[in-house]
Amino acid sequence: MTTKTASKKATTKKAIAKAVTTKKTTSAKAKKPLLSTENKRTVCIVGSGNWGSTAAKIIGENILTGEAKNYFNEEVRMWVFDEDIPQADGSVRKLSEIINTDHENVKFLKGHKLPVNVKAVPDLKEAVTGATALVWVLPHQFIPKTAMGVKDCIDPNAVSISMVKGGVDIAEDGLKLCSESINEIVKHEVAVIMGANVADEVARGDFCEATIGASNKEVADVFHKLFNMKTFSVNCVTEVPSVELCGALKNVVALAAGFVDGIGMGGNTKAAVIRIGLKEMQTFITHFYPKTKTEVFSESCGVADLITTCFGGRNRKCAEVFAESRIQGEPKSWEELETAMLNGQKMQGTLTAQEIMPLIQHHRLEKKLPLMCATYNIAFKEASPKTLFDIL
Amino acid sequence: MTTKTASKKATTKKAIAKAVTTKKTTSAKAKKPLLSTENKRTVCIVGSGNWGSTAAKIIGENILTGEAKNYFNEEVRMWVFDEDIPQADGSVRKLSEIINTDHENVKFLKGHKLPVNVKAVPDLKEAVTGATALVWVLPHQFIPKTAMGVKDCIDPNAVSISMVKGGVDIAEDGLKLCSESINEIVKHEVAVIMGANVADEVARGDFCEATIGASNKEVADVFHKLFNMKTFSVNCVTEVPSVELCGALKNVVALAAGFVDGIGMGGNTKAAVIRIGLKEMQTFITHFYPKTKTEVFSESCGVADLITTCFGGRNRKCAEVFAESRIQGEPKSWEELETAMLNGQKMQGTLTAQEIMPLIQHHRLEKKLPLMCATYNIAFKEASPKTLFDIL
Repeated sequence: MTTKTASKKATTKKAIAKAVTTKKTTSAKAKKPLLSTENKRTVCIVGSGNWGSTAAKIIGENILTGEAKNYFNEEVRMWVFDEDIPQADGSVRKLSEIINTDHENVKFLKGHKLPVNVKAVPDLKEAVTGATALVWVLPHQFIPKTAMGVKDCIDPNAVSISMVKGGVDIAEDGLKLCSESINEIVKHEVAVIMGANVADEVARGDFCEATIGASNKEVADVFHKLFNMKTFSVNCVTEVPSVELCGALKNVVALAAGFVDGIGMGGNTKAAVIRIGLKEMQTFITHFYPKTKTEVFSESCGVADLITTCFGGRNRKCAEVFAESRIQGEPKSWEELETAMLNGQKMQGTLTAQEIMPLIQHHRLEKKLPLMCATYNIAFKEASPKTLFDIL
Repeated sequence: MTTKTASKKATTKKAIAKAVTTKKTTSAKAKKPLLSTENKRTVCIVGSGNWGSTAAKIIGENILTGEAKNYFNEEVRMWVFDEDIPQADGSVRKLSEIINTDHENVKFLKGHKLPVNVKAVPDLKEAVTGATALVWVLPHQFIPKTAMGVKDCIDPNAVSISMVKGGVDIAEDGLKLCSESINEIVKHEVAVIMGANVADEVARGDFCEATIGASNKEVADVFHKLFNMKTFSVNCVTEVPSVELCGALKNVVALAAGFVDGIGMGGNTKAAVIRIGLKEMQTFITHFYPKTKTEVFSESCGVADLITTCFGGRNRKCAEVFAESRIQGEPKSWEELETAMLNGQKMQGTLTAQEIMPLIQHHRLEKKLPLMCATYNIAFKEASPKTLFDIL
């Protein structure tokens, strides 16, 4: 056999092998679509705080009564970091036991019944093992450790969605998003869901909207089926970073909105600040993710979440008092305000502003982001709140 | 001379005539740009209500102290529909005399000094004659009659801008905008200026923004010079109808926002309604003006004005009580609410909703505009306020 023949044979062999592989992949794909009535998925909600419990309520109800029951197994696992809850009679009960017996997360979503198919599971590995639809909803700083703790038990067919808002890490020359951190550990597609969603309002069934961002349309479909319901109307877009970053950057704009309130300006000014803020969110995000589509900003994760946050929300509230105290000549620090006003919760806008500022400077974006820079200078460089408009 | 030759000669003559005309026009244009330091324009504000007086304050200040003084004559005429103002001592003074002596429109913008160069002129023709920058700011229904009354005294070099919000007339198979009505009468370019501008907040110098819409860039420049200042930041776009229609349609969305408040739903729901409302404004406007650019909706005339109107504003306020009264089983009519709450002012949202509904039906846009239709049905067809979300 000449080298040529051998080479030819090898090529043919490769071609056949490739054809077989392609066929296999195609047929495997045809056999196992991500969303199927035959291979129902098992949901695990990784987290059980205010927003996680609200997610459990939506998902549980959807699977019990909605179209989702065709695609997901009835039991919805919710990982609960267990703790003792003191009772009126002096005894204590485990939070997980209360949830599984009384169907209420009395600590984080008091007053709202959870569907009976939501099962609190205090052991993280037990909760995740065998689950094929993972919903990550923990404070941002707990994500890496939690994901690392279960990466070996994750089902190879699992897909994930992150509900974590506001977590932006700074990588060497750009951003590291929470969905990217999860993806690096779990090694499968991670979508995100964001929107104008104050947990208690969602839990009580007020009409609201949300946006799913997923680069893979099939993954988007899985989570659309899981979350979408009459009172929680979900749109899908085909990108992740912009959707996720809106959820972080809006809190910086909310500081500016709070300053407007604190210096006693009215609705015109606040609307202008929200509008400019939305444009700057777009400028910032598009700089780091140039493929971002403009339409994302007119989804719930963009304009709607920004509006809610700039009128309600703890960032706006604290920023109002921050500015007011400066106008009155008795300046209060962020720490004082958090302690006095937030009952143990933390502000996210101030954190995010500090995280993104070096990045803005490194990329020389100051002139393109005057509102964000002015907000930072008021929050951390002792600029007067009235300087907010100096360069707009 | 043969017919052919005659024809050729005629053609040549025409060609020469055309060349001369073209040359004349070009040289005339080159000599007389719309904005020039040599041929300063004289401003006449046609109207002196709350918003007109605010415009006078901005324009007067800009000409006294800003760059505008290079392009506009110092005196700013303001047409005042004169009336007797009773004084504390029992005497009466003419409104125009008070404005020209005390520099305050005590009837429509009490508490704000007008610049000394603003001159109240009670005679409409006198005010308009010789003016080359006309600012129309009257209630929509007075526009045609007023414009007709002065069309013969209008300077051939005049340009106009309309500040009239909310006036939409229905033509045979589409819309007739206020700027179009003015244009038909005065026969020159009519721009519009819209935005998140509650008059009193603008007058007291709070930072705010506005949008000028003008198909001719030179006209846009004239009015940008006239209006833009540090606390009244103006952007220009190259289209008129979308900018003008945003100012009308936002009031319909504000009814929906008021219904949300009235049935006791929270910030999530309101943000969703504003977001969907903005999309429907875009759908409606783009249907009738297909060249509309998406960017217009992220200008002050779009998203910002909508936000202000859905949180403040009389349409939202009355709609809240309208819905509340229905939830409580004691339904109040729009007329009752106007009388009780608006102190003689009229709602615009209900009017606009009634005006656009036949058009929506005629063009079969119901499915594309579910929020506007539901709002109409609640406002006029006795649908329950809770049906607002039925088809969103």
